[in-house]
Amino acid sequence: MKLVQCIGAFIFYGGYSGQMPGMPMAIGQPMPGAVPNMPYGAYSGYSAYSGTYSAAADPMWTYFSTIAGQDGKVDAEELQRCLLQSGISGTYSSFTLETCRVMISMLDRDYTGKMGFNEFKELWAALSAWKQNFMMIDRDRSGTVELHELTQVIAAMGYRLSPQTLTAIVKRYSKNGRIFFDDYVACCVKLRALTDFFRRRDNMQQGVVNFVYDDFLQCIMAI
Amino acid sequence: MKLVQCIGAFIFYGGYSGQMPGMPMAIGQPMPGAVPNMPYGAYSGYSAYSGTYSAAADPMWTYFSTIAGQDGKVDAEELQRCLLQSGISGTYSSFTLETCRVMISMLDRDYTGKMGFNEFKELWAALSAWKQNFMMIDRDRSGTVELHELTQVIAAMGYRLSPQTLTAIVKRYSKNGRIFFDDYVACCVKLRALTDFFRRRDNMQQGVVNFVYDDFLQCIMAI
Repeated sequence: MKLVQCIGAFIFYGGYSGQMPGMPMAIGQPMPGAVPNMPYGAYSGYSAYSGTYSAAADPMWTYFSTIAGQDGKVDAEELQRCLLQSGISGTYSSFTLETCRVMISMLDRDYTGKMGFNEFKELWAALSAWKQNFMMIDRDRSGTVELHELTQVIAAMGYRLSPQTLTAIVKRYSKNGRIFFDDYVACCVKLRALTDFFRRRDNMQQGVVNFVYDDFLQCIMAI
Repeated sequence: MKLVQCIGAFIFYGGYSGQMPGMPMAIGQPMPGAVPNMPYGAYSGYSAYSGTYSAAADPMWTYFSTIAGQDGKVDAEELQRCLLQSGISGTYSSFTLETCRVMISMLDRDYTGKMGFNEFKELWAALSAWKQNFMMIDRDRSGTVELHELTQVIAAMGYRLSPQTLTAIVKRYSKNGRIFFDDYVACCVKLRALTDFFRRRDNMQQGVVNFVYDDFLQCIMAI
């Protein structure tokens, strides 16, 4: 399958710029959102909705603005309702409140605990890509995938992680040896948020960062 | 109130050994589990059940061993049932699966995703202390506390965090401006797990750690 062909080229472990040479994108079907040339892997430039743009003309704006109310922002519970109404989960079960909280914190650069419309659309773009990846491996639409399949998907997204780390991550998000869609998304959100957090502090892009305890807790606890 | 008196002495922000002088425990009622002289604050030596010990004579052993089965360990779902049967939540709502997963990962030093009986008792000791703290501020037993009360409790546990970090943490675990017992416990578990994780790598106890990306993700994603 195209997914498997693609995955073969992307399993770098322990890899980082400076430790492993950068590798070009494999020919074939790229995983949506994958940016394998970046030292940390995926999702470097995910601001998909910049530039001139009219919110009012956007069909998403209707249910977002209805739920957001006057302040034009949604908290985790409102986001949960928003995503439910949008139908983005499709036939999969809707997102838990905990996953919605992590979604908010992924893009909550000013620590308000809320999400504006532009951030919502940024989230939407990421969710659409992640859902597409999930459906590629959940061919029978059972709603769950196997652990080794999620391991392959994470590697294929371009994250350069050791097999031990991939295994630890996947195990953490499993239930009875399977990964449900909601847990898979929570895993993707955290991976991206933590990688972004790390990258922002890794000025030399060496894959090594000096953390001060307070800064470390402020960011990680929120994710 | 004793809690408030105690809290007054413990609000160090930006504090760390080397940056702020260590301060002695306040006279009065200490918060259970608080170890304020440690650079990171609370819960340095929490292995409460070492030494000679007969599991079979322990009343907890009965329901733990029944649920754990042959391998003598519980996963997150089994832990959830175990804690429910133990009645530790009292009148508060029982723990969510997500919180139970974080509880497992807090003590899961070998990344099995499971918890043995000794770890279960270690968890129990921490939960009992955290519950006692919660009940001290939830005087009307409403099941929730206010944000500033949780901020005070975290500071009183001895964690040396800036006001910004305390605020960010508390906001993350709130629902409609209140903190529920389950979220409070999830917050306490993560704080302890992340502090332990940080401290283990901070050889000089300076409050600064050099993280490699892969190690960073392996540990943080599991929490």
